[in-house]
Amino acid sequence: MKNYIVQNENAVYFECGYSCDNVIFLSLGGDNYFITDARYEIEAKLMAQNCEVLITNDLIQQLKKILQKNKIKKLFFDPNDFTLFTYEKLKDGLKTTFIQEHNFSKTKRLIKTDKEIALIKMAMKLGRKGFKRFSEYLESDGIGKSEKYLFFKAKEFMSNIGELELSFDPIVAINENSAKPHALPTDKQICKNDFLLVDAGVKYERYCSDRTCCTSIHKNMTFQREQKFKSKLEQKIYDIVLKSQQTAISKARVGMKASQIDKLARDVIEKSGYGKYFIHSTGHGVGLDIHEYPNINSRNDVILENNMVFTVEPGIYLNEKFGVRIEDTVVMKKGKAEIL
Amino acid sequence: MKNYIVQNENAVYFECGYSCDNVIFLSLGGDNYFITDARYEIEAKLMAQNCEVLITNDLIQQLKKILQKNKIKKLFFDPNDFTLFTYEKLKDGLKTTFIQEHNFSKTKRLIKTDKEIALIKMAMKLGRKGFKRFSEYLESDGIGKSEKYLFFKAKEFMSNIGELELSFDPIVAINENSAKPHALPTDKQICKNDFLLVDAGVKYERYCSDRTCCTSIHKNMTFQREQKFKSKLEQKIYDIVLKSQQTAISKARVGMKASQIDKLARDVIEKSGYGKYFIHSTGHGVGLDIHEYPNINSRNDVILENNMVFTVEPGIYLNEKFGVRIEDTVVMKKGKAEIL
Repeated sequence: MKNYIVQNENAVYFECGYSCDNVIFLSLGGDNYFITDARYEIEAKLMAQNCEVLITNDLIQQLKKILQKNKIKKLFFDPNDFTLFTYEKLKDGLKTTFIQEHNFSKTKRLIKTDKEIALIKMAMKLGRKGFKRFSEYLESDGIGKSEKYLFFKAKEFMSNIGELELSFDPIVAINENSAKPHALPTDKQICKNDFLLVDAGVKYERYCSDRTCCTSIHKNMTFQREQKFKSKLEQKIYDIVLKSQQTAISKARVGMKASQIDKLARDVIEKSGYGKYFIHSTGHGVGLDIHEYPNINSRNDVILENNMVFTVEPGIYLNEKFGVRIEDTVVMKKGKAEIL
Repeated sequence: MKNYIVQNENAVYFECGYSCDNVIFLSLGGDNYFITDARYEIEAKLMAQNCEVLITNDLIQQLKKILQKNKIKKLFFDPNDFTLFTYEKLKDGLKTTFIQEHNFSKTKRLIKTDKEIALIKMAMKLGRKGFKRFSEYLESDGIGKSEKYLFFKAKEFMSNIGELELSFDPIVAINENSAKPHALPTDKQICKNDFLLVDAGVKYERYCSDRTCCTSIHKNMTFQREQKFKSKLEQKIYDIVLKSQQTAISKARVGMKASQIDKLARDVIEKSGYGKYFIHSTGHGVGLDIHEYPNINSRNDVILENNMVFTVEPGIYLNEKFGVRIEDTVVMKKGKAEIL
């Protein structure tokens, strides 16, 4: 077993089932240490599993003491997880050799356990309930409200008034604002039949859901995949993106490269003539972080395996008009992709 | 003028009045560059001042090209602002010498301009309005609600239903949960006369406010400093913390060391016999970041000057009972501390 340190909050949670924003987690061949400060003592001692909780004012000094005492020769770490400052302070005066391993924790978390998949599935279910509550609100009270107000309401309905944490700040974008993949809410007010994109997710026991829906404001509106738009262009683009997404999901197989999933989605959009408006990759892994491995893009040659979880979210963005993105989170099971 | 790079979002905003989450800002003796990707092109070109906006897929490559072209020999940077990974990628193949300057931007921002102070003052004013709305809600509808629900309601009232950004996720803690300085909300329901701690702030034009209040749920409750608790112990501890805070604020003077402010607050609590329950430092600077310089703790010998802005927030935490923290944000003006 190798010796390693992690600092990232979700990486630490993955190791021991508890985390906080000031911690170094050290693993020495199975002897684990959760090094934190007095603010987190009570919770850490109660909740961090299979590790000794050490309370200190100086996390790095405490870590160095343990490394010296145990005469540790090699220590693995992720150079993305430590600032230059922390790294240099850590190395100073130690005989330990620090070995870089890029995205150490994310790689460990690439294939989910069945328990993790069940948590993400529950997060997706709770997320869908949030979307439903939000659409009921939009139908009855949405018209005339600003994007900023609806952004807040999306947080209210997705979180079920604070019961659930959100995976990220939702995107609530009307008409031309939806053409920006990472739109921020404005003071613009929503009108009847306006195009609306909502990208949102919630957490269940720290595991994230992620979903994007497009609709328009009208009677009996829903966030389901079947959509009828008054605008012919909106309907055309929506149908292309939906076909792209459904094709990628239905044809995805264990043994394919991640880049092949990207190609399945991209080919449909390219054949329709809108290839240059699909300006991002097809998806990303989901787990404790909202962005995990595997990345589903044209350059990633990782081979898909059962129990990998990722989004499939092609999009077409027509600048100054509107943008369509349709996203679901899927798991590879029995060789195929299954929507969670 | 020295050459430097900054990457942190608020550090970049301080340089040019605009920022985003994927940028390197380069200053070469007054020639400034805002290096970002296509997603931010429109806004950056419109809003970033006194700098050339460069759009690229590879920020680090673009930066290296400019450094090479200008034959830059020395470049200052903050080792806390770059991961080891980014730093090594940056240095690779360049002749430039990278010179570490710790907390480069935070040090620049230590003494606020009058304009910055006015923005923080406005944030504090808007924050107090949020606290007032929240207390009115608590008085009429609070009883029986869970911490998680009240946590959401705190966000609703502090943000004025999404109009303002929050400085941080508020802390809403009832009874024994308030004994944790960084409590997370639970399913615990609030009852009449329960002890309640709320720590919250909002942003105004990106500048933060920060304030902590303790109260109990009863008729005519407020978040003002004058509080009457049914429990004698709560009242006793509250009065000690209030005296500690008021002593530190009234006796703070320009020319003192930051550590002397900490001592002013700590001495009152120590003399009362609760010194070991005051388990954190007395305060921190506030500005674009919620935690800036100067740190107000027992080890910081920085000399206080006019226009420094920081919190004064002593606390006493009685494990499994309750915790009291009283926090205001102050500015040093005409030699003294003034509550913003």
